[in-house]
Amino acid sequence: MQRYFLEEIYQPDEQIILSGEAFHHIVRVMRMTPKDQVYLVFKDQLAIRAEIIEINEDAVYLIEIEKEQTQKELPNTITIASGYPKGDKLDWIVQKGTELGAYAFIGFPAKTSIVKWDTKKRKKRQERLKKIAQEAAEQSHRQVAPQVELLENQQAFLECFSSYDVVLVAYEESAKQGELANLAKVFKELAVGKRILAVFGPEGGFTLEEIEVFIEKGGILCGLGPRILRTETAPLYLLSVASYQWELDH
Amino acid sequence: MQRYFLEEIYQPDEQIILSGEAFHHIVRVMRMTPKDQVYLVFKDQLAIRAEIIEINEDAVYLIEIEKEQTQKELPNTITIASGYPKGDKLDWIVQKGTELGAYAFIGFPAKTSIVKWDTKKRKKRQERLKKIAQEAAEQSHRQVAPQVELLENQQAFLECFSSYDVVLVAYEESAKQGELANLAKVFKELAVGKRILAVFGPEGGFTLEEIEVFIEKGGILCGLGPRILRTETAPLYLLSVASYQWELDH
Repeated sequence: MQRYFLEEIYQPDEQIILSGEAFHHIVRVMRMTPKDQVYLVFKDQLAIRAEIIEINEDAVYLIEIEKEQTQKELPNTITIASGYPKGDKLDWIVQKGTELGAYAFIGFPAKTSIVKWDTKKRKKRQERLKKIAQEAAEQSHRQVAPQVELLENQQAFLECFSSYDVVLVAYEESAKQGELANLAKVFKELAVGKRILAVFGPEGGFTLEEIEVFIEKGGILCGLGPRILRTETAPLYLLSVASYQWELDH
Repeated sequence: MQRYFLEEIYQPDEQIILSGEAFHHIVRVMRMTPKDQVYLVFKDQLAIRAEIIEINEDAVYLIEIEKEQTQKELPNTITIASGYPKGDKLDWIVQKGTELGAYAFIGFPAKTSIVKWDTKKRKKRQERLKKIAQEAAEQSHRQVAPQVELLENQQAFLECFSSYDVVLVAYEESAKQGELANLAKVFKELAVGKRILAVFGPEGGFTLEEIEVFIEKGGILCGLGPRILRTETAPLYLLSVASYQWELDH
């Protein structure tokens, strides 16, 4: 069943009126008619199954059938921060990361990042990634469509650390030195409702200087197992094991 | 450091002589010279760091410096079986699955699989996937280069079930019905050295009939969390959480 993310807060007992992009998709693309049903996800993460009761020139009218029962979001939010990787790897990280439950994505220029975008190109890229996140969120039945923010410099990135309860830094050298306990320790000890920032380097990894600054800012270094994971694979590992620890392991 | 998978069993205290493809790569592609070092992985999964002592017209001579210390392989083997998906998704499953520690890959025609390959095309595809697995194994510092087998029919697939200690079947309907405990239960109770077959459907999923046959053959249905994962994402989830359970969670 189709899934639409709305900008409004949920209001109980009201008829829902959709216009604009959702109207266009329901009526012109999907060619739905009265009695067809869709999922609607409100800004406050509440999702309902709704039935179309009327369609006119520029709006679709729906009524609520029932609230969606299953909790689809991780109990703690994980924001994935990637040092700009090469090519279209960020597309993959955002698509797959959204499926696996990421709350938001941040891109930032790491010391070894090769891509250089001017403001215009960066904004364009950001819009494209938002669209990928939205589509993946619909497809994977999320209750949140992740935000995507591409930052201009590392200063802006470091400033955002204080908005999180925990900052994890995936560090290959940790894995090489046999550090394999930090991730499980953090995930197990965390209460519910915390905000996690998980930081990943580009292909060339982080410099020692970057790692030192991350630690100074409160970052916890962690290894992701004994195999070397590519820059686009590591975030998927972290999100998968968060789901396992918090959603499956009872 | 470059990593080469050899067909030989490890022989202690001997000079190693490489010819053929490894010779070509070391001398012509990487342009290495005496005193350069490489990792060599033998058929019995033992890996050493070796130094080049001489290069002649058609062979490279190396001596062992030290054995690789870290265990890079999962303590139980996981073979990923995918009902043939569309496009180049199998390439991705093999590349990323190899990074995440898969022991082998099997492809088979599921009822809802759309691709139809004749024997020639299938064999060609199999060779290509083996190459992808080998390259990913080198890059992620594995001690095993995964085998890839593309099967002609579902009968051949079902016959292989008996070669495994545990058969897990990822089933979306399990997740929808809130089944979230089986995977963790199996992973936690497993002794070391077991062979696991993990079965994933194509985009259209498995039919009820297929699921019944899998169960009859001993398959255990399991959900992979509350979000709907794409056919190429689900195997990566399973491999990541296996690593977390067996390698990180002490």
